Amino acid sequence: MSSKPSIPKGTRDFSTKEMLKREYIFENIKQVFRLFGYQPIETPAMENITTLLGKYGDEGDKLLFRILNSGDFLSSLNYDDMTTLEYSKLSSKICEKGLRYDLTVPFARYVVQHREEIVFPFKRYQIQPVWRADRPQKGRYREFFQCDVDVIGSDSILNEYELIRIIDDIFKILRISTVIKINNRKVLAGIAAYIGESDRIIDITVAIDKLDKIGIENVNSELSTKGLSEKAISNLQPFLQLNGNTSDKLGTLNRLLSESEVGKKGITELQTLFTYIGNRSLSCDIELDLTLARGLNYYTGAIIEVKSKDVNIGSICGGGRYDNLTGVFGMEGVSGVGISFGADRIYDVMNQLNLFDDLKGSSTDVLIVNFGEDETKYSLKILDKLHEMGVKTELFPDPAKLKKQLSYADSKKIPFILMAGENEINNNCIKVKNMSSGEQKEISMKVLKKFVENEIRQTKGIDSLPPNLKIL
Amino acid sequence: MSSKPSIPKGTRDFSTKEMLKREYIFENIKQVFRLFGYQPIETPAMENITTLLGKYGDEGDKLLFRILNSGDFLSSLNYDDMTTLEYSKLSSKICEKGLRYDLTVPFARYVVQHREEIVFPFKRYQIQPVWRADRPQKGRYREFFQCDVDVIGSDSILNEYELIRIIDDIFKILRISTVIKINNRKVLAGIAAYIGESDRIIDITVAIDKLDKIGIENVNSELSTKGLSEKAISNLQPFLQLNGNTSDKLGTLNRLLSESEVGKKGITELQTLFTYIGNRSLSCDIELDLTLARGLNYYTGAIIEVKSKDVNIGSICGGGRYDNLTGVFGMEGVSGVGISFGADRIYDVMNQLNLFDDLKGSSTDVLIVNFGEDETKYSLKILDKLHEMGVKTELFPDPAKLKKQLSYADSKKIPFILMAGENEINNNCIKVKNMSSGEQKEISMKVLKKFVENEIRQTKGIDSLPPNLKIL
Repeated sequence: MSSKPSIPKGTRDFSTKEMLKREYIFENIKQVFRLFGYQPIETPAMENITTLLGKYGDEGDKLLFRILNSGDFLSSLNYDDMTTLEYSKLSSKICEKGLRYDLTVPFARYVVQHREEIVFPFKRYQIQPVWRADRPQKGRYREFFQCDVDVIGSDSILNEYELIRIIDDIFKILRISTVIKINNRKVLAGIAAYIGESDRIIDITVAIDKLDKIGIENVNSELSTKGLSEKAISNLQPFLQLNGNTSDKLGTLNRLLSESEVGKKGITELQTLFTYIGNRSLSCDIELDLTLARGLNYYTGAIIEVKSKDVNIGSICGGGRYDNLTGVFGMEGVSGVGISFGADRIYDVMNQLNLFDDLKGSSTDVLIVNFGEDETKYSLKILDKLHEMGVKTELFPDPAKLKKQLSYADSKKIPFILMAGENEINNNCIKVKNMSSGEQKEISMKVLKKFVENEIRQTKGIDSLPPNLKIL
Repeated sequence: MSSKPSIPKGTRDFSTKEMLKREYIFENIKQVFRLFGYQPIETPAMENITTLLGKYGDEGDKLLFRILNSGDFLSSLNYDDMTTLEYSKLSSKICEKGLRYDLTVPFARYVVQHREEIVFPFKRYQIQPVWRADRPQKGRYREFFQCDVDVIGSDSILNEYELIRIIDDIFKILRISTVIKINNRKVLAGIAAYIGESDRIIDITVAIDKLDKIGIENVNSELSTKGLSEKAISNLQPFLQLNGNTSDKLGTLNRLLSESEVGKKGITELQTLFTYIGNRSLSCDIELDLTLARGLNYYTGAIIEVKSKDVNIGSICGGGRYDNLTGVFGMEGVSGVGISFGADRIYDVMNQLNLFDDLKGSSTDVLIVNFGEDETKYSLKILDKLHEMGVKTELFPDPAKLKKQLSYADSKKIPFILMAGENEINNNCIKVKNMSSGEQKEISMKVLKKFVENEIRQTKGIDSLPPNLKIL
């Protein structure tokens, strides 16, 4: 047991420095969610395995972490199980629970289970870790956080508009320049109908989803491999090459899809959304992007995806409208729309762009040096006074060498050092050292409060997390 | 799949109402931790099973949730495993990971693993769920949250004092009347030596730990059953019946344990701690309680336990000093002291005492009624203005009947309703309804800001979570 301990691959410890940055992101996201009237729920880490199985495709089922039944898990096996020894069958028998794979399926389960208590439209957010037995690689973890915000029980396009506003507010506060891409699944269905391949919509959207990555030639040949006729592929080209501003694009679509009911409905939804957006200036760029399909097949209306303009890292937020999320749990006809913020990628973008600069607010403000038992009584009084004023203050617990105490302050980025030795105690004052300027001075205990108001509060510049936003 | 879905027994969903109360507790606890210079870390939900096994006794090992290896978990079994079919042996072979059982062992693992990056004394807090396969019962869950705060790498009694201060601040803010009980493991060791039963210290402390519950007669007969001599039991009585104020108790102990080195050291530690405490008035009651032993055997100095004075629910916070937490991972001689707040019990106490009354700050402030497409443009402008002022505002997404919209506001406890129909739009004003007084009035758009300042902010009474504490 004396070799250095470690953690499972694909998981992470978060140090205090990392946590303060992460909390900065989560706090700001939460504050914006609340500003728009969303409230938090939480669901258990483990769900019944039947709740999870079959919701993420065969690939997803394989990536579920399963929890071994407590006690004698073998007792649930029969002779056949024991002799066949087929691991995928066995695992379902010895594991009744699994770790959640995302927040969407638990949310759907929650809505159905608590339908009697919920008042619709139900505006909720949920920020919790999820677990996937993916092969770990750079930027992909087996435990990571999702921040989901959804409104369920209303099909008004005002909800889509609200989510766009939330995206815009959050990335403005976090100072990340972004482009919000918008599409509509009904328009994609209309296009599939227009080219005479309605039943191939999944193949088509999966292929065009890759347009950015593999280019138009490869998309076309992939579609051909999938069995689309040459005529269908040729008819698809105007959609793949759609350009101009949003109103040009909507005009072209209107013309091409004039025969498709579903297509026209999608265009109307897009027009309504862009009218709401058009009335207001946003910080993000907004783009109607027909090549946006997103992998998940449960979207039925708007599709939304957000990318950083400065860091090439894939989507940092995405979502859309689904008309039947809860159907799989027996509750039909409830429409909802939601998006998910990728906290880990947002963290990476902000780190890369040095956007955590001004996080000084979260460190300790003041370290009082410990000179030994005799001075401690005096120091404890100062400590009390500063705490009463809400100043984050530590008294170093041991009378260690001054150098050690100063290097402790340095490593925690504590901006002010207070020292009270025999002289200061006799004169009822304190020596103050400003760690960034190096300046030292003596102040009388009487002006301690003034010192806090004028110097500490100014240096910190903020009065609590989150630094950028004050919600009433 | 059409039967109502459910969650594993012993786990919980948290509704928006419950979450806001829980966050109120967590936020206040965190703010106090930060006020004293503690910073957060987080560790993964899953640890290598070898990190967890053997740390909580045989009973604890059985209560670990184990995670089945991904893929073909049978491939790690040999012929013997397959034929013996002994479930406890098998489980260790097919599960390399387990869910964390508490925050203490992962913290010890963290400190050893990251010893090179950590600057000591290391002051950290950690608020995360833990999982135990306990039999679920009222007030006991299989997933629950712990809030741990520890300082490691310093043996100064100032740390114990700081934790007492933190306990006092937190329960003052949460408005829970408490008594903090303090004992010292070295004193218990001294007592065991004094009665000539040094090697029975565990039996003795386990027995006297039950004094509150089963009474002195039963404690004595339990000790007799465990094989303690009559003389030892008789010598133990003055300790069990110790009374008077703290200084009386310490005086008696000093006299009785004058021959025991370890006992005297424990008494000195207690004296130092009570001297620090004595210099300051606390809100909590403080009591030196020799019968306090706590189940865990790794404590080596101070032992701390906190109880509510108004609700009989067992301890709501507890901890102590340990001199060798990291030894099991190969890092010897690091002393630390820490406490853990029981969030679930604190929640129950506050619910029972109606201490969540003033949580109005976390609800939405304003609902704007939706009268239809024509009015929406005007309403969206109001929405923007209120959001810019930091007022939590929703526009109802659908033009539903007024009654439905008002009952939505009621269920979310939204205190103000704004209405802008044709008349109001023509007059550039808004109708305001105060949901608690029932009062309605018209205000001009020009005075919207004043209305926010004078009425909304006053009704809410606070400007952000946490309501009771503002940290600089």
